[in-house]
Amino acid sequence: MKENGRLIVISGPSGAGKSSVVFRAIEGRDDACFSISVTTRKARPGEQDGKEYFFIDQQRFDKMVADDELLEHATYVGNSYGTPRRFVEDKLAEGKNVFLDIEVQGARQVSVKMPEAVKIFIIPPTLEELKKRLILRGTDSAETIEGRLIRAREEYGEADFYDYIIINDDLDEAAQELNAILKAEKCRYPYRSYKLAEV
Amino acid sequence: MKENGRLIVISGPSGAGKSSVVFRAIEGRDDACFSISVTTRKARPGEQDGKEYFFIDQQRFDKMVADDELLEHATYVGNSYGTPRRFVEDKLAEGKNVFLDIEVQGARQVSVKMPEAVKIFIIPPTLEELKKRLILRGTDSAETIEGRLIRAREEYGEADFYDYIIINDDLDEAAQELNAILKAEKCRYPYRSYKLAEV
Repeated sequence: MKENGRLIVISGPSGAGKSSVVFRAIEGRDDACFSISVTTRKARPGEQDGKEYFFIDQQRFDKMVADDELLEHATYVGNSYGTPRRFVEDKLAEGKNVFLDIEVQGARQVSVKMPEAVKIFIIPPTLEELKKRLILRGTDSAETIEGRLIRAREEYGEADFYDYIIINDDLDEAAQELNAILKAEKCRYPYRSYKLAEV
Repeated sequence: MKENGRLIVISGPSGAGKSSVVFRAIEGRDDACFSISVTTRKARPGEQDGKEYFFIDQQRFDKMVADDELLEHATYVGNSYGTPRRFVEDKLAEGKNVFLDIEVQGARQVSVKMPEAVKIFIIPPTLEELKKRLILRGTDSAETIEGRLIRAREEYGEADFYDYIIINDDLDEAAQELNAILKAEKCRYPYRSYKLAEV
């Protein structure tokens, strides 16, 4: 029997290094991928359909919502974004773990539709350290950084929704923890119970 | 903050290689140990008090039961055996993971008193393979082996009580899975949530 992959929902404050941890963990592995969202936003120069996003029009988007083809969806600055159920399910059926980098609200929507998703919250060692990283990154104004820190504290209040917390202090150690979680989750009772019948 | 160790309950059919998997996993690590049981059985030549068992008399044993000092207890062939709560709690407080190799009935007793215990069921790849291993071991009669196989099937029916299933086909792979489970369990929300307050 071929084992399905697992949907891995990743959340955490902006600047915690979520993608870095995931990329380090899945480096050189062909059994994992990121989910690709659909969006009604216009493609920017250099963006390819099916790579950064699947670019679709509002009518198609609304039909996907109506047909329950999105695991979660939201609107930012007048554009709609969503996670296509079919894409995720196809990858899972191929045995790949699918990563979804998403805010808490979206994570809750996904969890209702796919309760078996593994939910991981990635945080910096301290919020003081997060502030340093955001300043160092140099892309946000002081005001935006303060806003991100306030948002981080709000998100921390919802962390009990998650199955695991990874502290991204040392990137390699964080990636090892993520890989340990993936390996352990394959051993969980419901996913291995078929072995008890193969006697 | 120093993190406590975790109580790891290991069950599975006789001959599945439970101790081999645990010993391979914790080889060279000083953050893990096996629990040591109390027993009213007389020490055999070569056995040391506090090594194989803590040897105590029936009166002391009965008092431990009455004082709720045992996480589980049972009687075999007229002798009483039990897992001393204090010993386990002391090791956990030192930050050590404590392994308990025990049957399903005992595992259920422990789980009531320590619901945070991680419960792992270790099985052979197939019952046919288990039979081969038991024959190869050469310590059991054909009748005893048949009895063990019947018991194994009964235990499989209770495997849904466990959090994880490890298949001991390749010993190194099984030990890696056990280590991944230990590492992942350290990341679980309740054990890491104190980090959210250290902001």
